Amino acid sequence: MTEYILPLQKLIEEFCRLSGVGQKTATRYAFSVLDMTEEEATSFANAIISAKQNIRECEICGNLSDAPVCAICSDAKRDPSVVCVVEDAKTVMALEKVKEYHGTYHVLGGAISPMDGITPADLRIKELLSRIAEGKIREIIIATNPNIEGETTAMYLSKLITPLGVRVTRLAYGVPVGADLEYADEVTLLRALDGRRDLH
Amino acid sequence: MTEYILPLQKLIEEFCRLSGVGQKTATRYAFSVLDMTEEEATSFANAIISAKQNIRECEICGNLSDAPVCAICSDAKRDPSVVCVVEDAKTVMALEKVKEYHGTYHVLGGAISPMDGITPADLRIKELLSRIAEGKIREIIIATNPNIEGETTAMYLSKLITPLGVRVTRLAYGVPVGADLEYADEVTLLRALDGRRDLH
Repeated sequence: MTEYILPLQKLIEEFCRLSGVGQKTATRYAFSVLDMTEEEATSFANAIISAKQNIRECEICGNLSDAPVCAICSDAKRDPSVVCVVEDAKTVMALEKVKEYHGTYHVLGGAISPMDGITPADLRIKELLSRIAEGKIREIIIATNPNIEGETTAMYLSKLITPLGVRVTRLAYGVPVGADLEYADEVTLLRALDGRRDLH
Repeated sequence: MTEYILPLQKLIEEFCRLSGVGQKTATRYAFSVLDMTEEEATSFANAIISAKQNIRECEICGNLSDAPVCAICSDAKRDPSVVCVVEDAKTVMALEKVKEYHGTYHVLGGAISPMDGITPADLRIKELLSRIAEGKIREIIIATNPNIEGETTAMYLSKLITPLGVRVTRLAYGVPVGADLEYADEVTLLRALDGRRDLH
């Protein structure tokens, strides 16, 4: 006899596929499913299928979308002349929560990482250049992650785009709001010093 | 525009139904689903439906089963004269991991809790008495949880079953193996003292 009956074992294994879920957590989730009504379980299963089938990449920016063009690109109130370049759709969502950015986005689908075999050709850089070639973009804000891969990608894009006459900016580095300076790492502190601003 | 596109929002909400999952974790899981292949997502969804449809209660003991009678009750090597009474199927699994118990089980489906409106009539006690009435059971090991509800249930069952001439036992209380006595609560220590055994 296996440890669990087969349909339960299978469900536990499936939950283990989720990011950061181990055997114990997966077992707890599987029991949550068993505690659901049949309707709730069906609705859960359908949400998985539906998300997978209906969510695609926006034809313009590569952001997650349930239509050919995403809600941001098709929003007339957003400024298409400012494009924020991010690694993935999660960053778009993080920036959208700020509610202060009114430009559009471009999702690269990752960052240049020779270690992982990710070259510029694997990213949506060609698409970005096409957008720039249309001549309506005046600023590219590079918001790749502040790590080696993100930096490499930012440098690469900057060298590629600056000659095209478009302003290229990068998110400011510095100490995160609410953090304790005592625990900030040296590189962050150095960047925060370098980027210091006059108090008015 | 809502914070997330609809199919994603819906999937996040569904993940929030799982025990101990909040908005942030649910969002991480939803993205895990988007990272899956279509086949993997379908397999995940099917596992949910299949678990819900194929897992039922064993007709004899109430344990989770994918057949009318569970693998333990239908195992000829298990001793049907010893029945371990537990609150739920999770406890059956915990005890099965020990691999030293060779009797059978009876799952009550909860514990008596006037606060939550759970009375003896809500538990599978009638079914337990029917099994005892068949005359083949010589010992009932009560393994309800060591809390007020579990204790109440244990006392109730003991008073009900002892007059029937069946031996009724309770799991030993004491300090858990590997624990630090310094942090053990007084009630546990008192029980451990009460239940002390001679060293041979």
